[in-house]
Amino acid sequence: MEATGRSRAGLVIVYTGEGAGKTTAALGVLFRAWGRDMRVGALQFIKHSMANNGEHRAARRIGVELKPMGDGFTWRSRDIEVTKGLALQLWEVCKEKIRSGNYDILILDEFTYPLHYGWIAVEEALEVLRSRPKELHVIITGRYAPQDLIDFADLVTEMREIKHPYRKGIKAQPGINF
Amino acid sequence: MEATGRSRAGLVIVYTGEGAGKTTAALGVLFRAWGRDMRVGALQFIKHSMANNGEHRAARRIGVELKPMGDGFTWRSRDIEVTKGLALQLWEVCKEKIRSGNYDILILDEFTYPLHYGWIAVEEALEVLRSRPKELHVIITGRYAPQDLIDFADLVTEMREIKHPYRKGIKAQPGINF
Repeated sequence: MEATGRSRAGLVIVYTGEGAGKTTAALGVLFRAWGRDMRVGALQFIKHSMANNGEHRAARRIGVELKPMGDGFTWRSRDIEVTKGLALQLWEVCKEKIRSGNYDILILDEFTYPLHYGWIAVEEALEVLRSRPKELHVIITGRYAPQDLIDFADLVTEMREIKHPYRKGIKAQPGINF
Repeated sequence: MEATGRSRAGLVIVYTGEGAGKTTAALGVLFRAWGRDMRVGALQFIKHSMANNGEHRAARRIGVELKPMGDGFTWRSRDIEVTKGLALQLWEVCKEKIRSGNYDILILDEFTYPLHYGWIAVEEALEVLRSRPKELHVIITGRYAPQDLIDFADLVTEMREIKHPYRKGIKAQPGINF
């Protein structure tokens, strides 16, 4: 089952686009990797640090790190400087964890937003990714992935919205959306 | 946290398209729903019944049903009649489970293929979905989702391949792809 040589590459994976399923797919990787006893962790840039959604409860139960570290910023932040400050703080944590050698897979959930808003320079992010331990997979989710990140990544899927129930007035569903 | 009225609708969700992340997103829902103690199960149409991937190991550990029931058909089936027979057999199981009232969420992984190949009539599948318990969410994954299914579904995301490492000759990675 062990892959060898070229095939044992750490990948940079980006789930982007307007459609549903980006964070959800990253959670699927987390689940799958945990099943293989891989060292997986997830850091969430936007999700409010008090969030206690299905995925947080599940992660706690199985002892996997899934840390919401944002302030729930949803384009309605009361104080954008606070939101930005939290993102920069979390980025420092990310850099440390990326370099640590303590992970097989790291998920940077909604990391595209601080890049998109220019709070973190894309070039700096790429430099950190470039110099990461060579077998570390990094998964980045969120809309508006910058082109330079797409060019750099190994796997990029755009989640394209064909149809969304919000448009019919159906609210987010527990277990499905959160 | 409980949703009420209209918002407490069972959704039909389709993850389709050529890109990576369809089954993975369904696994993310499974994980999230388990965290909420919801009754979730997954039936896999193509995945070989002997498969023991990361997700199968993880599901076994947490006691969630994730049943691969196919013969690993990947457009290279030795005997298409066997593959088709397995799909029809699994469809009978699906119908029973859908009607049972024993689930909050059912995942029919790669169910689009038997539809696409005409082994199961789309109209029959829609009839089963239409008459399901009204709060049951059903998630269907796979390429080539038939248009009638897309029209019927509440949420449809197309996973669009922007970039895939297979094209660079990098093999599927444990924990990431399986």
